[in-house]
Amino acid sequence: MPISPTIDAGPADIERTVRSALDRVAELFDRQLGSDLPNVGELCRQIGRYRGKMIRPRLVVVSGLAAAPELEDVLDEHITLATVCEIVHMATLVHDDVLDDARTRRRGLTVNRLRGNEAAVMLGDYLIAAAYHLCSQSEHREAAVLVGRTAMVMCEGELLQLHHRDDYSLDVATYEEILARKTGALIGLACRLGALASGADTATADRLERFGLELGVAFQIQDDVLDLTSTEGMLGKPTGKDLDKAKLTLPLIHHLELAGADGRGESLDLLERACAGDRSAAEQLLRAMDRTGSIEYARGEAARRIDDARTLIEPLVDSPAKRHLLLAADTLVNRDR
Amino acid sequence: MPISPTIDAGPADIERTVRSALDRVAELFDRQLGSDLPNVGELCRQIGRYRGKMIRPRLVVVSGLAAAPELEDVLDEHITLATVCEIVHMATLVHDDVLDDARTRRRGLTVNRLRGNEAAVMLGDYLIAAAYHLCSQSEHREAAVLVGRTAMVMCEGELLQLHHRDDYSLDVATYEEILARKTGALIGLACRLGALASGADTATADRLERFGLELGVAFQIQDDVLDLTSTEGMLGKPTGKDLDKAKLTLPLIHHLELAGADGRGESLDLLERACAGDRSAAEQLLRAMDRTGSIEYARGEAARRIDDARTLIEPLVDSPAKRHLLLAADTLVNRDR
Repeated sequence: MPISPTIDAGPADIERTVRSALDRVAELFDRQLGSDLPNVGELCRQIGRYRGKMIRPRLVVVSGLAAAPELEDVLDEHITLATVCEIVHMATLVHDDVLDDARTRRRGLTVNRLRGNEAAVMLGDYLIAAAYHLCSQSEHREAAVLVGRTAMVMCEGELLQLHHRDDYSLDVATYEEILARKTGALIGLACRLGALASGADTATADRLERFGLELGVAFQIQDDVLDLTSTEGMLGKPTGKDLDKAKLTLPLIHHLELAGADGRGESLDLLERACAGDRSAAEQLLRAMDRTGSIEYARGEAARRIDDARTLIEPLVDSPAKRHLLLAADTLVNRDR
Repeated sequence: MPISPTIDAGPADIERTVRSALDRVAELFDRQLGSDLPNVGELCRQIGRYRGKMIRPRLVVVSGLAAAPELEDVLDEHITLATVCEIVHMATLVHDDVLDDARTRRRGLTVNRLRGNEAAVMLGDYLIAAAYHLCSQSEHREAAVLVGRTAMVMCEGELLQLHHRDDYSLDVATYEEILARKTGALIGLACRLGALASGADTATADRLERFGLELGVAFQIQDDVLDLTSTEGMLGKPTGKDLDKAKLTLPLIHHLELAGADGRGESLDLLERACAGDRSAAEQLLRAMDRTGSIEYARGEAARRIDDARTLIEPLVDSPAKRHLLLAADTLVNRDR
């Protein structure tokens, strides 16, 4: 007998409901990626290792419950659309790793390193096709249109980022546009699809989508901040890495915008030295970024977006699921890793 | 007033109908790939150059007319699904060029050479997303499911091929399986989608899909043969290239299967020397392939599949469109480039 979240359910109840839903997602994920070709099946199993906290499927389920607190239980349609979001996400990870020539993901070697770029490109394509195939069987015709549209927006975000690679004149607005497209769009979609599966009205779906979008962008900005402020052990991944790779992040972009002509030149020099492995240059740059208030600025941007996200879903009827979403937003911005 | 093909229309009439439909496809293609980001728009314009004979959209339209000769004209739905097939095809070309590290396509530089592998991977993803987005708006819900499924099969074909790269023990059956998945599936889909758009019954759709599948595989086998027998000028591309790159093609696979242990060893030596640029080794290998009847075998395989394809659509009501399909099948196997 499935557990039904009710308005009186506590956080433990909703967590149990979500976990049982995510088990069903994991099962459908494996079923949808099944292939009659053994070599394809083996490649897909590599992907299982990439699975993290399943943030997107989780948001489909919780948004679905928040959009329709009268629902007795999570519907099959939520599971279908949650699985679609997770497969799309996995596809982007596989292709991102090719684009970034990444060596490791989740403490294991990436598909591109294990099997070569060619197999990784094709596996990503297979995942995308599997996501669309599943999505086009949804009860809600709109879902496939939304998934197609969002995938276009995500690719545009990647292409915009590639276009500005090594462009140290990139402005804050364009950078946030990249984040909104690359990360925000899919998180927003997850929230919207949850609402859609619940049969919620358009206004509710709109609010939840914008909630997810803000959350996604805030998450990425927080990532940028943590890269500069966190220490190795806590994050579970090397930190300060973004500077070492001269990766454009919000604090750095803000700093270069504000540093003035001279300061900018100095900071770009420091960045170049940091890239070459000079740790003291990296530390000097960090201090310069602190002087222009750039780390604080980025932290503030993340907090502002979380506030906006919270405000967006305020009109929703009170429910354990809604409280879960609000809590998730807070946890995200207050995390230290 | 659009031209209506009727049962009495001649080949010129149907060609006029098809050409006018293909103009509409080209228009929708450009509209669907429009982006609000200038750099994405510019990349998509590179793709315009890749457009060839539009075989897949043409097959959607002609199959649609053959499946329902009573139709007064090509429907919007044919145009939509024809455009979907063309976009999917373009996406596979872009990613194939990354996988093959190809330098040129249609006498111009490839996207991967012009803009780098990263941009080419992402442009391919954008095209696929655009195809699904368009497809999910089709009147026929089944279309999106078929497109998703076919894209999975195509990727499986690519992955199967990658798995057997440099595997000179690859057998004929597996090679033909690769061709069926990589090329046959999309051509078969084009024919089926044409029938679907016309509201044809499942039996007709099945026949047309299998017609397209056989046609597609025959086309690829004929390509393999022409690479060995054609001369540079006629094909418009370098010939004998497959041997120079040690690419596995049907004649070579058949030859290695039949050559016996000794002959096989000799032929693999010749292949290695041909790859290193030794033209006389290439010619010796060609003669060895001729002795095992391998070129004739491949030619026969292509002809047999064309016969099967013709037989498959024989039960269709006679119409200019049906005759056009039969003619296309003949032309394909009798081409010399």
